[in-house]
Amino acid sequence: MRIYLAGPEVFLADVEALAAAKRGLCAAHGLTGVFPLDPPPQAPDAAWPDWLRISQANEAHIRSCDALIANLTPFRGPSADVGTVYELGFMRALGRPVFGYTHVARRFGARSLAALGPAARRRADGAWEDAEGMAVEEFDRHDNLMLEGGIVASGGRFEVEAVPPDRRWHDLTAFTRCVAEAARVLGASA
Amino acid sequence: MRIYLAGPEVFLADVEALAAAKRGLCAAHGLTGVFPLDPPPQAPDAAWPDWLRISQANEAHIRSCDALIANLTPFRGPSADVGTVYELGFMRALGRPVFGYTHVARRFGARSLAALGPAARRRADGAWEDAEGMAVEEFDRHDNLMLEGGIVASGGRFEVEAVPPDRRWHDLTAFTRCVAEAARVLGASA
Repeated sequence: MRIYLAGPEVFLADVEALAAAKRGLCAAHGLTGVFPLDPPPQAPDAAWPDWLRISQANEAHIRSCDALIANLTPFRGPSADVGTVYELGFMRALGRPVFGYTHVARRFGARSLAALGPAARRRADGAWEDAEGMAVEEFDRHDNLMLEGGIVASGGRFEVEAVPPDRRWHDLTAFTRCVAEAARVLGASA
Repeated sequence: MRIYLAGPEVFLADVEALAAAKRGLCAAHGLTGVFPLDPPPQAPDAAWPDWLRISQANEAHIRSCDALIANLTPFRGPSADVGTVYELGFMRALGRPVFGYTHVARRFGARSLAALGPAARRRADGAWEDAEGMAVEEFDRHDNLMLEGGIVASGGRFEVEAVPPDRRWHDLTAFTRCVAEAARVLGASA
């Protein structure tokens, strides 16, 4: 069974070492980990610009996989990386199990308020909004409700592991729990 | 033909007026606009918590529609709202046309660097990275390449309209261009 490994780690300089570590943990659970930078199932149209070839290679990877694990650790703001979230929604629509994890325990509402700082203000009903009048989502989740909603509805699981900032993009504790659960859901055997 | 209207406007206090304006523009082009807050096609499981009911109502809305228009204007950071992006990826995976628009003309790379400020630094190869060693994506796009990649590959269109900050969440110029193009692609007639 093949599992797509979504996450902003593709932006790391040492991405290949991390990809190898993730693939190894998948193999130990009887799964084939597919990384975004792997050669795609079919070669994209050579006439396309780089960004479109990468995008369509990733979509082809996702379609070729049986499940997805997304690193949803906040990325340069209160929310996860949007490329990763696009891929999470994509796989969820295909009806296959999706899993996610974060390395930040603090919830989305609190993180959003911290990022807004003194710009946050109260509405008459007590809800928080930003300086543009947009409400701060507060459902005691780890990010926008669509993310955990899709994961739970798919039969997947969302794992939380508080990780020190210097290990934020390299720790694999929560990822390993996702792999073990994916192997169980997919019926894989090591 | 039904078109799902994704965007962070659901967080506005005057969301109902904006939803009515968007629905009206869709109707003028022969399309039925479906807003996230509309009653869902089927009632979600009453035993679910609010966040899961909302998430699954939105997924059911998307499945019931023929196309999607996403407001991808940057939301509290360099990227679009992750809930909207999840829905964009979801509809793209269903193989239906997806459209997007932004009210900020400045490109993603420049916006990311501006948000990082003095924390941005150069790698040996000249590429920019943040203080955690994560590269700044630079493909001269408006956001992470998965977003525009999916839109272009679906046969949709991405529209840009520079809008003054005080009209950022209410201007409908780019949205209207998306509706007209969606009507053309879907073969709708007013």
